[in-house]
Amino acid sequence: MAPSAEDIRKTVTRYVEAVATGTVDDVLALYAEGATVEDPVGTEARTTEASLREFYGIIEPLTQTGELLTLKIAGNTAAFHFSLVTELGDKKVELAPIDVMTFDDDAKITSMKAVWSQEDMITR
Amino acid sequence: MAPSAEDIRKTVTRYVEAVATGTVDDVLALYAEGATVEDPVGTEARTTEASLREFYGIIEPLTQTGELLTLKIAGNTAAFHFSLVTELGDKKVELAPIDVMTFDDDAKITSMKAVWSQEDMITR
Repeated sequence: MAPSAEDIRKTVTRYVEAVATGTVDDVLALYAEGATVEDPVGTEARTTEASLREFYGIIEPLTQTGELLTLKIAGNTAAFHFSLVTELGDKKVELAPIDVMTFDDDAKITSMKAVWSQEDMITR
Repeated sequence: MAPSAEDIRKTVTRYVEAVATGTVDDVLALYAEGATVEDPVGTEARTTEASLREFYGIIEPLTQTGELLTLKIAGNTAAFHFSLVTELGDKKVELAPIDVMTFDDDAKITSMKAVWSQEDMITR
């Protein structure tokens, strides 16, 4: 049975929180086994748990604030615009991509593709 | 050669205009041959020009206003949040999906997937 929109919404909300303020384990717990991550789109997809751990491990120690801006759901797919603000000394770097995710029946993430480019990364 | 972000931006901007106020031919001119449309995601993909003509033909006669709200580009992919307001008598119906598109080297659309559900359609 396809996941409900409400379950997908919960997973996305937890994902933004976990990426911003959680641990790698918090993020990985939201992914299904065998999930793929292509971030940004056009780079080689990460297809192993080790490569996902490496990816999210980079941002784990950073001081970040996450905010879900827009979320659309259709079937087993979500597309959402969110903001991730990283504190770097007295500066803040904001990245606001649109992520596209698919989900399994338990609303675990089976694939993530992040659509953003350098111009979406703003230092202030 | 991959299309430039600027060319993709032009196609997306023209798409939102064409869907809102243009003709079916205006919209179809932005699509590559063999392009597919899945709107919303989870429904059967349209894979022929005739089925794309049928799809966009439904909204061609409507009085609509389109607005591009957020556009993210990565490689040959764009994800964008846009609003389409349709005037129905003294009421307005707003639909604001996130569309995900891929493009060929000439920045023509090779696939479109629209992520939205009934809750994204607001009557006012």
